[in-house]
Amino acid sequence: MGNVIQERLSALRKLMKEKKIDAYLIPTDDFHASEYVGAHFACRKYMTGFTGSAGTAVICRDMAGLWTDGRYFIQAEQQLQGSTITLHKMGEPGVPAVHEFLYSHLEEGQCLGFDGRTVSTKEAEKLKIRLGEKGVTLACSEDLVGSIWTDRPPLSCEPVKELDVKWTGRSRREKCEDIRRAMEEKGADLFVLTSLDDIAWLLNIRGGDVPCNPVVLSYLVMTREKVMLFANEKAFPDSVKEALHADGVTIHPYDDVYEYVKKTEAGKTVLLCKEKVNSLLTACIPTEVKILDEENLTFLPKAVKNPAEVENEKIAHIKDGVAVTKFIYWLKKNVGKMTITELSAAEYLNGLRAQQEHFCGNSFEPIISYGSHAAIIHYSATPETDIHIEAEGLLLADTGGQYLEGTTDVTRTIVMGPVTEEQKLYFTAVLRGTLNLAAARFRYGCRGWNLDYLARGPLWEMGKDFNHGTGHGVGYYLNVHEGPNGFRWKMVPERNDSAVFEEGMITSDEPGYYVEGEYGIRHENLIVCKKAEKNEFGQYMCFEHLTMVPFDLDGIVPEQMTARERALLNTYHRKVYENISPYLNGEEREWLKEATREI
Amino acid sequence: MGNVIQERLSALRKLMKEKKIDAYLIPTDDFHASEYVGAHFACRKYMTGFTGSAGTAVICRDMAGLWTDGRYFIQAEQQLQGSTITLHKMGEPGVPAVHEFLYSHLEEGQCLGFDGRTVSTKEAEKLKIRLGEKGVTLACSEDLVGSIWTDRPPLSCEPVKELDVKWTGRSRREKCEDIRRAMEEKGADLFVLTSLDDIAWLLNIRGGDVPCNPVVLSYLVMTREKVMLFANEKAFPDSVKEALHADGVTIHPYDDVYEYVKKTEAGKTVLLCKEKVNSLLTACIPTEVKILDEENLTFLPKAVKNPAEVENEKIAHIKDGVAVTKFIYWLKKNVGKMTITELSAAEYLNGLRAQQEHFCGNSFEPIISYGSHAAIIHYSATPETDIHIEAEGLLLADTGGQYLEGTTDVTRTIVMGPVTEEQKLYFTAVLRGTLNLAAARFRYGCRGWNLDYLARGPLWEMGKDFNHGTGHGVGYYLNVHEGPNGFRWKMVPERNDSAVFEEGMITSDEPGYYVEGEYGIRHENLIVCKKAEKNEFGQYMCFEHLTMVPFDLDGIVPEQMTARERALLNTYHRKVYENISPYLNGEEREWLKEATREI
Repeated sequence: MGNVIQERLSALRKLMKEKKIDAYLIPTDDFHASEYVGAHFACRKYMTGFTGSAGTAVICRDMAGLWTDGRYFIQAEQQLQGSTITLHKMGEPGVPAVHEFLYSHLEEGQCLGFDGRTVSTKEAEKLKIRLGEKGVTLACSEDLVGSIWTDRPPLSCEPVKELDVKWTGRSRREKCEDIRRAMEEKGADLFVLTSLDDIAWLLNIRGGDVPCNPVVLSYLVMTREKVMLFANEKAFPDSVKEALHADGVTIHPYDDVYEYVKKTEAGKTVLLCKEKVNSLLTACIPTEVKILDEENLTFLPKAVKNPAEVENEKIAHIKDGVAVTKFIYWLKKNVGKMTITELSAAEYLNGLRAQQEHFCGNSFEPIISYGSHAAIIHYSATPETDIHIEAEGLLLADTGGQYLEGTTDVTRTIVMGPVTEEQKLYFTAVLRGTLNLAAARFRYGCRGWNLDYLARGPLWEMGKDFNHGTGHGVGYYLNVHEGPNGFRWKMVPERNDSAVFEEGMITSDEPGYYVEGEYGIRHENLIVCKKAEKNEFGQYMCFEHLTMVPFDLDGIVPEQMTARERALLNTYHRKVYENISPYLNGEEREWLKEATREI
Repeated sequence: MGNVIQERLSALRKLMKEKKIDAYLIPTDDFHASEYVGAHFACRKYMTGFTGSAGTAVICRDMAGLWTDGRYFIQAEQQLQGSTITLHKMGEPGVPAVHEFLYSHLEEGQCLGFDGRTVSTKEAEKLKIRLGEKGVTLACSEDLVGSIWTDRPPLSCEPVKELDVKWTGRSRREKCEDIRRAMEEKGADLFVLTSLDDIAWLLNIRGGDVPCNPVVLSYLVMTREKVMLFANEKAFPDSVKEALHADGVTIHPYDDVYEYVKKTEAGKTVLLCKEKVNSLLTACIPTEVKILDEENLTFLPKAVKNPAEVENEKIAHIKDGVAVTKFIYWLKKNVGKMTITELSAAEYLNGLRAQQEHFCGNSFEPIISYGSHAAIIHYSATPETDIHIEAEGLLLADTGGQYLEGTTDVTRTIVMGPVTEEQKLYFTAVLRGTLNLAAARFRYGCRGWNLDYLARGPLWEMGKDFNHGTGHGVGYYLNVHEGPNGFRWKMVPERNDSAVFEEGMITSDEPGYYVEGEYGIRHENLIVCKKAEKNEFGQYMCFEHLTMVPFDLDGIVPEQMTARERALLNTYHRKVYENISPYLNGEEREWLKEATREI
């Protein structure tokens, strides 16, 4: 691989020289600031050989570097061997951030190039200011990797489908009216929306252009009268096209959005989110146009699920609960008796989900990690790493499905045989956190950081912790990671996941505990926020469990739980049995009865 | 009173006419943005007759208004009768804020006057921008009330004393070195400090110029070489003056600070906090001087008590605990047998505190409130409101003392006789909150909003709450309210009380529950933040109780507490007995033994 990468670097550097570009920046992003990207956008992987989901490459005339975070240090070191590319370990002492590296490496009069479609407007503005201090210029419309990448996969063009209002609760016409009302309040003439999940939500369409994320590769521009969707028309069946047209949505070629915004009249106001709209698109808007940098108007309404969506989600979670419960039963029954590996288990679970009506695929790459693999938080088995699941220790299964009725995301830690007292201690402590957070009752106005202690407390009190957020927002048959709700104790403004909880927001509740090289534990339910009573103190809020899968009682030490915590678990398990048992066969039902017994 | 106020308004309006001032603003502040102010500064009270601790008056040619908050609506209505001054109830729907009122009431070319010494720089800047939009000018050096107030009390000039380093833990020389180092880092040539408690802390001096707050009326300017203290030299005994001089602190007349800062050389940089330094002083700084608007450099080190201060505080809290414990014993023994009123009880408690060595007075106006009075959160008995304490119901005692060893602030709710099941339910719930918050164990980096649920949870889970913050920072033999630490679930940036908890910060932990017209409950301990273990997850933090006074077991339903909560209470009570019993007589000791028994 090393030689291939060196050849690609030479080709790129030749182009850079021609174009008078001294350093070339290659981020991981697609043109829509998506968390996950399709094959067409994998430029950084093509140029470096590094396959991780996060990282930025910088190619200079005399050197090349790759920046990535702690999750990927070992993998990146291996994959960069022989490539002449230096690994920069982000967050390690003495390692400058990409911007600072560029600032110190480039000299006055030099030029930094990048494909402006892969860099957000906000990011490009920061680069411009920082490098401008030194007299470095930017060339932001240069897709140099595209020029040398001869066998580049084409843009994805998966078929688009329409979601009936019985799934979405609101028609696209109603949604567009809401957004137009918001535009009017803000004084916006145009709303430029490029986030793929926001577009899919607004138009009640779903596609398949990003793995596990049922989105449609597109840009959208909304005026007070029209909606222009810039996408590959071939992906749209006639019926969908007609339905869109009937609601005033016209379809235009994907790339035409750049020419379209160039024609915006002077004096108009365009609302767009600079963290999400790419810098090339923003640069196309004439300077006489006023830009209102605000969060996407679709962002909050997408997160606040309407009553129909919430009811559908409950159905999705029963279907998903049936599949996962059957999976756990099968695992516990067969482990040690037949060959089961991480990959074969994932496949079996996938088969169970596929038997459910309206199943549309996984909501993310399944994480079935056994033993010490479970301590690697972002582990996902490959044929090279796959191992046998034995009749001992803990198996962590973090998986989810897409259904017409919604998106699921559930983690269970399953006791495969003998486990240690220590494992049970932390298994119980983590579960107490999951249960206590879901049982929170709080005044309207609380954010994730007000409640996070409920999940971490049992671990913090023992001087332990887990190094990830406690929960993320989840879309409706959309992206499994969605803002602006979440649980996390530290404020991280750029994550935009600390909004006030609103009725209808769906959030994951997933504390964990990990011992490197030994084992990992995580218990995750999705919970939906609901209104509780309103009285002289104000509006009270609470959560309701959506996920319907038993927690493994074999891992629990009841004496380490308070009476209230045991009652919370028993109540939950009663509900799981009620909801799931009707869909099981006799043997499974007997097992579930026992697995959800009172403790 | 009404006629007197009308005469004063006439006199003021006559002056306003002469000075061409159309509206005159009278805030509650002294020249130092103090929370409480001395008699000399009571201009708003003088002009309106309203005696509350918060409020702003606006006198126009044709009308006069007073703005105050919910705590004072009833009192203000009564006190404004016959005054021709209109009450504006802040926070009520349709009531414009003072700035908005001025914006809509004043017209182009008109002039707003105020004594710029009583308005912060930040506030004046906001006024200037808002009113400037309309072409209204500001006259900010007009002390018109001072001109008509013939019998105005003089500026306080209480004797100043020095605090030995055995009380403060650090000498003023060391503190000044630290501040100079910080100035250097910030590139500041001058540091203008006008917050009275910060000055007292920095120079290790204490005075008595604000009731209950042992501060010295003064301004301070620090350069890289010198410290200039602007204060009434008569208040300083020779020994203190000499000690200050020896450490390079020179004393100048109080008012001279204005002339002094006028002479700041162009090109110099002055660090000052615009929220705290008054607008007249800032206006005196030449425009060619750069102003660095930052939090006072003394603010954080003042809050982070050093090891000597923490050890002293423990001693102060034992002394205070002895006084309060004796008080509770006396109350419970004598109620129903002798006449005890709210005021006489406060006096008795004051006598007990006065018997303690190094006692220097109350740290705030004592709140001894019986029965329904306890539901009025800011109640403080007066001869008019004073009532008998009977052998039934609940008495709330929120009091504190100043000692050379530190400042105390403690609330106990005392069962005086039969109480209802409802009262016991909430008595227990509030106590669970106090105990759980104090028992928090958390990662370094947590702020008040991460932990507040621990105190409110037991009430929130019942759909109840209390309408005040859960805790405030406390000074060392200084102001009982101090930033930047505190407990509160909502972020309120202007309160500046949500800092990351540092080892040595002292905070009150005081949840409550109040039923208007019936009863009030509050349990308050001061807790000091300490480091717990440091491991691979990071630095863990915890709290330690400083307050040493029993919680009244007569109000508790043990069955409503978890085993952990009962253990927390038992452990605390054991510590109270160990620390307090040696200072009690036999009868008291017997009683304390029973009052701190295991439950």
